[in-house]
Amino acid sequence: MMIYVMFLVVSLFSSAFSHELSDPSSILQYPSEPKKVDRGGDEVNLHCTSWRFAAETNNLAPWSTIPAECADYVKDYVLGKGYVTDLERVSEEAFVFATTVDFSAGDGKDAWVFDIDETLLSNLPYYIDHGFGLELFDHSEFDKWVERGVAPAIAPSLKLYQRVIDLGYRVFLLTGRKESHRLVTVQNLINAGFQNWDKLILRSPDEQHKMATLYKSEKRDEMVKEGYRIRGNSGDQWSDLLGSSISQRSFKLANPMYYIP
Amino acid sequence: MMIYVMFLVVSLFSSAFSHELSDPSSILQYPSEPKKVDRGGDEVNLHCTSWRFAAETNNLAPWSTIPAECADYVKDYVLGKGYVTDLERVSEEAFVFATTVDFSAGDGKDAWVFDIDETLLSNLPYYIDHGFGLELFDHSEFDKWVERGVAPAIAPSLKLYQRVIDLGYRVFLLTGRKESHRLVTVQNLINAGFQNWDKLILRSPDEQHKMATLYKSEKRDEMVKEGYRIRGNSGDQWSDLLGSSISQRSFKLANPMYYIP
Repeated sequence: MMIYVMFLVVSLFSSAFSHELSDPSSILQYPSEPKKVDRGGDEVNLHCTSWRFAAETNNLAPWSTIPAECADYVKDYVLGKGYVTDLERVSEEAFVFATTVDFSAGDGKDAWVFDIDETLLSNLPYYIDHGFGLELFDHSEFDKWVERGVAPAIAPSLKLYQRVIDLGYRVFLLTGRKESHRLVTVQNLINAGFQNWDKLILRSPDEQHKMATLYKSEKRDEMVKEGYRIRGNSGDQWSDLLGSSISQRSFKLANPMYYIP
Repeated sequence: MMIYVMFLVVSLFSSAFSHELSDPSSILQYPSEPKKVDRGGDEVNLHCTSWRFAAETNNLAPWSTIPAECADYVKDYVLGKGYVTDLERVSEEAFVFATTVDFSAGDGKDAWVFDIDETLLSNLPYYIDHGFGLELFDHSEFDKWVERGVAPAIAPSLKLYQRVIDLGYRVFLLTGRKESHRLVTVQNLINAGFQNWDKLILRSPDEQHKMATLYKSEKRDEMVKEGYRIRGNSGDQWSDLLGSSISQRSFKLANPMYYIP
């Protein structure tokens, strides 16, 4: 490691001080070519961590399945300590922010928006059976799973949910699930411990083919028109968080298994 | 690992199927309490990776220094293969997007915005001497470094920069550096291989105390008023990317060393 560090430092400084930069590619020489993924565990881990970082920061082009070489990595992450550590952290950070909001207006218009799937409820039992994102998304199979209404709560999100309600926020559940799944979704949420939300918003039949970012933005626009101040928004997809009427703070829950544009 | 996975799966399913959820905390039991950080390398790695992801996804409350226990982690990341892998990936993903933009209007109004520090130019030589973010930011010390004008190019960003110019984008450099550093910044950029930008925007004296998000939003607002379509925006801070006149696609470069609100 030390030799490696010395190499980089020397490389950085030699170029930084030289001012002879006719070949820009010589400026910051990196000793690696990290794109090939044919090597041992460390290299796969490096590559897949980088992929996950790019996915979580919304740097990737739209993707339909996880990279095949990252299948074990994603499985280990979601079933191991990594995923729950990340979920607990975002729950705590969101709560810290939630406590900073000034409620002195006392008009009951401070709102928090939660997505449902992979935000309040976990579909891990489904994804355990479907390759953790390695299989192409199967609407019909996933609908069958949703209709069973047995998705467990994501515990750190349930904790945040209860805390923001206790603080006095109005809670809106804004999901890409369809209106025909309202009843099973309500039952699933209640069975998983969620209650006292203000409004559960699902996609109407004419909204089925809208991009999630647009559909969710329009619903947030309506909240804002009704006078709500959207303070926080918790979602596992950037399409939960971006667009119009963006919340004061957005909280991105980890989800390396699927992407919804 | 197998026993651990079995535990989690059984835990997930037993709760998912039971519907006896009077105690919501029993719903999704995780076997760990990841908040304490007093253990071996694996736990520190887990904790610091989680911290880094929270930082990169903008989930953290504003922070002024990296967590003390993550000092070695951050050092290893920025000097090791992790950082350069992430920088190369974001450069490639941005380029892939850049090629999808329709230039048929032919009016020269498609623009790409680049931040400078930790986006085009690397201040790693400075941070190597200043604890990789462990020390509180020292404006006076950092100014001295900037005034030397020797920051090396971030090679993958230089590659992207040249590619978007070749594609026909107008390039705006939008930096939090102050106007009095214009000359040294121009010289540094040219020495590092950057050229042919359309406009270099620095903070005027009356903008010194504006939050970066507001300052950069106002500058993007002006670009939009002038008829530019901001297609891409590359920055290492969310304050480079969020606010008004947001670009069609934003690209978040990794930076676990400092945070600018």
